[in-house]
Amino acid sequence: MANDRCLVIGGSGFLGSHLCKALVLQGAKVNILSRKVDSVSCAQYADLFCGSLQDVESLEAAIAGCSVVYHLGSSSIPSTSNLDPKRDIENNLKGAVNLLEASLKENVSKIIFASSGGTVYGVQPAMPISENSCTNPICSYGVVKLSIEKYLHMYFSLYGLDYCALRISNPFGEGQGLGRKQGAVSNFISKHLQGERVEIWGDGSIVRDYIYVGDVISAFLKAKDYTGTHKVFNIGTGVGRSILQILHSIEQTFNCSVERTYKPSRLLDVPKNILDIELAKKELDWQPVVSWEEALTRTYYYLKAECLK
Amino acid sequence: MANDRCLVIGGSGFLGSHLCKALVLQGAKVNILSRKVDSVSCAQYADLFCGSLQDVESLEAAIAGCSVVYHLGSSSIPSTSNLDPKRDIENNLKGAVNLLEASLKENVSKIIFASSGGTVYGVQPAMPISENSCTNPICSYGVVKLSIEKYLHMYFSLYGLDYCALRISNPFGEGQGLGRKQGAVSNFISKHLQGERVEIWGDGSIVRDYIYVGDVISAFLKAKDYTGTHKVFNIGTGVGRSILQILHSIEQTFNCSVERTYKPSRLLDVPKNILDIELAKKELDWQPVVSWEEALTRTYYYLKAECLK
Repeated sequence: MANDRCLVIGGSGFLGSHLCKALVLQGAKVNILSRKVDSVSCAQYADLFCGSLQDVESLEAAIAGCSVVYHLGSSSIPSTSNLDPKRDIENNLKGAVNLLEASLKENVSKIIFASSGGTVYGVQPAMPISENSCTNPICSYGVVKLSIEKYLHMYFSLYGLDYCALRISNPFGEGQGLGRKQGAVSNFISKHLQGERVEIWGDGSIVRDYIYVGDVISAFLKAKDYTGTHKVFNIGTGVGRSILQILHSIEQTFNCSVERTYKPSRLLDVPKNILDIELAKKELDWQPVVSWEEALTRTYYYLKAECLK
Repeated sequence: MANDRCLVIGGSGFLGSHLCKALVLQGAKVNILSRKVDSVSCAQYADLFCGSLQDVESLEAAIAGCSVVYHLGSSSIPSTSNLDPKRDIENNLKGAVNLLEASLKENVSKIIFASSGGTVYGVQPAMPISENSCTNPICSYGVVKLSIEKYLHMYFSLYGLDYCALRISNPFGEGQGLGRKQGAVSNFISKHLQGERVEIWGDGSIVRDYIYVGDVISAFLKAKDYTGTHKVFNIGTGVGRSILQILHSIEQTFNCSVERTYKPSRLLDVPKNILDIELAKKELDWQPVVSWEEALTRTYYYLKAECLK
């Protein structure tokens, strides 16, 4: 599959830009469909198409000649998706149906979808969460990600269009820039480096499964070549860390003190989310390999360099 | 709850018109929101509002003063929903979000939703299907019904808006008129009474869980007063019958011969669907009480009278 042409939807984003570079390194040809082509960091390696999934013309231009599609695009993020669920549905769910229809037309062999392990499960009674757990999201972002999985399954069942959905936990690492709203680890380090106070929603006890970006990218690559029967995989570390534990790690590792401001907890934050990753280990022959300390250090020095720019 | 005012979305439909009559008999006041107010059969008992969930103005007029909402409306049916999934999403999923928003504004105490036990589960390895089974629909109608359930859960979790989703199997009975596309039992009896051949998609082996309309209505009434913690219930009989068994029943019961035309099987038909109804029995104190033979006979004589009109 090394010489496949791949379309990466959302190739200018945090995960997308890492993925494009990795695909190019593997010898694949890469098309990128993005609303923000001027911010694509690997423009020299890829063919850029400005547009979105709502714009079928740009989508059909971008998908032409591609045998594999990575769908990492989203116009919403969890914390804001509940402000306008209809817009979320309009842009992201109907957009995904456009992608499925275009993929059928183009005879795409596989769609690999970045689903959300952090939101599709909602509040769970037990940890870690396996792929068979019930799925009751408490934000529109999670409902839409889950609904896209269901349409992927439907098109696979009816028309044989293969897919793989990766339910990714909370990724962090180089490329998550300064001033981003998503991603506690990068956000905390950024704030600290910029001399600002870190904002904590609630008492800092909420637990997430943080995964280094490089480990997510290796899962994306494994998913492309996987030929087994499973379609949905959790991608995380299986280890949970609270907000306070992250802050403690940062303070210990970089011998500093992080200033905090506590704010009221948010309705849409589930108290705990840790993924069971045994299925991906077994089926995809994948596992996270970068340690927490190593990932934290890489992120810190990346952001420090960004501060100096 | 006898004096509650209830809004019934889709009150002019097959299930909706029976439900409105039953609510009025219980002493409830009923508002109906329907695109086809001139076809509402219980117009004399209810307040009619012409409109749909897409039209927020008509929705807000219809919901004013209502404490309970029954959502039985759908602009699509399973067999045609795959022709245009985006339209299905636009009308039915975004429409449901409009309903949720309007219900919050109006301080509605509960939404009872007609979900689809026949489509949300997709192809299952074992029968009967419990509410905890995986949900992988193979038609857009089922994906949208499931996505609406997820938004109902989200609004309940975030804002305390209570709900109950009834995953109804294949209802039949009086009111399913001549010439309808949905509903094998009524369709077969209609065709036979009109001297036409029955069309069978596939070899007649597909199995469904057929339930009499009166038994579905009693579940809707129980759901309104239920105060337990479960939110999603299968509503069926727990008994499966194949297409060929239905035809055999009709021929035996009415001492006739039904002419058949076999057509290619349809992609969207799952081979077998039988619901496990133990949860509804236990929690809602509900069970189907009308026998197959009795329900078949009532349907037959209803349709015979319709033929003479």
